[in-house]
Amino acid sequence: MDNPFLVEVARGHLVESRHRGSVSVVEADGVTVLSLGDVDRPVFPRSAVKALQALPLIESGIAEQFGLTDEEIALACASHSGEPRHTAAAAAMLAKAGRDLSCLECGTHWPMGEAANRALAASGETPTALHNNCSGKHAGFICLACGSDTDPAGYVKAAHLVQQRVRAALEDITGASHDEDRSGLDGCSIPTYAIPLPALAFGFARFGTGIGISPDTAKAAGRIRKAVAQHPFMVAGTDRFDTRVMEILGERAFVKVGAEGVYCAALPELGYGIALKADDGTTRAAEAMMGGLLLRYLKLSDEERAAIERLAQPVLRNWNGIEVGGMTATGELMGAPSS
Amino acid sequence: MDNPFLVEVARGHLVESRHRGSVSVVEADGVTVLSLGDVDRPVFPRSAVKALQALPLIESGIAEQFGLTDEEIALACASHSGEPRHTAAAAAMLAKAGRDLSCLECGTHWPMGEAANRALAASGETPTALHNNCSGKHAGFICLACGSDTDPAGYVKAAHLVQQRVRAALEDITGASHDEDRSGLDGCSIPTYAIPLPALAFGFARFGTGIGISPDTAKAAGRIRKAVAQHPFMVAGTDRFDTRVMEILGERAFVKVGAEGVYCAALPELGYGIALKADDGTTRAAEAMMGGLLLRYLKLSDEERAAIERLAQPVLRNWNGIEVGGMTATGELMGAPSS
Repeated sequence: MDNPFLVEVARGHLVESRHRGSVSVVEADGVTVLSLGDVDRPVFPRSAVKALQALPLIESGIAEQFGLTDEEIALACASHSGEPRHTAAAAAMLAKAGRDLSCLECGTHWPMGEAANRALAASGETPTALHNNCSGKHAGFICLACGSDTDPAGYVKAAHLVQQRVRAALEDITGASHDEDRSGLDGCSIPTYAIPLPALAFGFARFGTGIGISPDTAKAAGRIRKAVAQHPFMVAGTDRFDTRVMEILGERAFVKVGAEGVYCAALPELGYGIALKADDGTTRAAEAMMGGLLLRYLKLSDEERAAIERLAQPVLRNWNGIEVGGMTATGELMGAPSS
Repeated sequence: MDNPFLVEVARGHLVESRHRGSVSVVEADGVTVLSLGDVDRPVFPRSAVKALQALPLIESGIAEQFGLTDEEIALACASHSGEPRHTAAAAAMLAKAGRDLSCLECGTHWPMGEAANRALAASGETPTALHNNCSGKHAGFICLACGSDTDPAGYVKAAHLVQQRVRAALEDITGASHDEDRSGLDGCSIPTYAIPLPALAFGFARFGTGIGISPDTAKAAGRIRKAVAQHPFMVAGTDRFDTRVMEILGERAFVKVGAEGVYCAALPELGYGIALKADDGTTRAAEAMMGGLLLRYLKLSDEERAAIERLAQPVLRNWNGIEVGGMTATGELMGAPSS
């Protein structure tokens, strides 16, 4: 099955590049709202499910026991830009577990945020594992281990208590079995399990509404959504798509990007969960697709609509600031009547 | 027409992302060697034709008159990483024309090379137009204007003598008309004209062989190919694909990347010109495609083959250096017998 064109990038009067993808929008009772492309193909959710991976930390009461703040809970769901507020919060989480950055097993990279990257270089320092965009999630994993009286060493391994609980939480909320033969290693060394988009969307519909999951899981999901909505900077960073969307829409949209063009969202007021993937793995396509779906489904004020359009349908400018083109989701994604 | 899958990105045992594209390989007499996908669709060649855009500078004798070195001629064809050798050479070219960086109209951006980017930040300086990846091409344009006794101001405009000569050179070597209604503005503010891939490939076959073009153009093309082969660092930079390919293969392959997934090449010993585009505009796909074609067509020693394979079929590692997957061109691109 050929996935449809869902995003077009124009230059002058021509389409310069095109992105195909697949989309699933599902209600919490499992009813399909939208299905575009081959949604049966298993997709690695990568970082798009960090909020679901954080459920055991909250549901176990360990976040409460360690006194994690809402900012820190938001960071546990983050692919952050490595800005000072992010690294400081990750360090604080580790300290609450009686640990430090030497316990992090995510690996080290220069900050994902361009300004943070250059600021770190200008300071003469080099990055630590705290700058890894996943350090908040990993600090949460270490809290989960320590709060469970388990040695955190090796917490990234599939057989460790932490990953077993994370995998169980993912299977529980998505209803999809997470099989070893469909697993891969993520950028930060934890396992990632490929599942079909409708299962991912279903999981986010339940995450956003609490419908069909245990009261404790629903309560944990609510705490996470509230924390992220109140601190959208923590989940991504300056000028990042996730952060901007939630700054504009607050609790109306929980959105989270993953690597290789995956994007998930929950729209609680509609009861929808969304999961999508750009075939080619590009973030720009995934963002334009997610932005298009927000415009398609949410009732927005003129101001909100204009703000989301600026993110979802960006004007492309060259190095002199001159408008050279633009990017937008196609009519097929936006639900335009076919001509 | 649906373009075929030409590159696959794997994680674990699954294909995580896939790239489609189109490819044209043409001989200097116009005979088609390979055609994959919809090659009739006009494509903006962007920076992939910088070597063709440099032809008037050489053919006019102005490069000789100003004493441009081979390194500087290579830089005139470059999308460079903004490393100190690049910016110094661009400044030297401008000085030879009696000008300085205030004449550059390409705009300013932080160095494309990560290490150069951080080194500049660490120095406490901010970028100038010399760091723009196109500064060598623009310095060449300014030389062309000054050597033609023309005010360089406005040299990026379609109506300026410089762009008129560049456009005529492109039309001459590709045999394709460069129409206003298929033009767009490039990242560096000069016009870019969309033409079909076979015309681009035809132009590079003639650029690589001198067949079918005037003796003066052929001589200029030879000078450019030799200069780039001798100084492949100048055309891109540290660890860049173009640079590495030509460090390995020298004059046997002239390769040049463009924005939005375009790649062009000349393989003089075979008389082939190559032009390709990844539909989605990603550089990783374009590189894997070009690398695959080099492996398909060139007779390589075991050592050369291994070196090109490392570039074209990279192992993907996570932040801990653990192998998590790989990227490779598909059998359709590589010419594998279909199963």
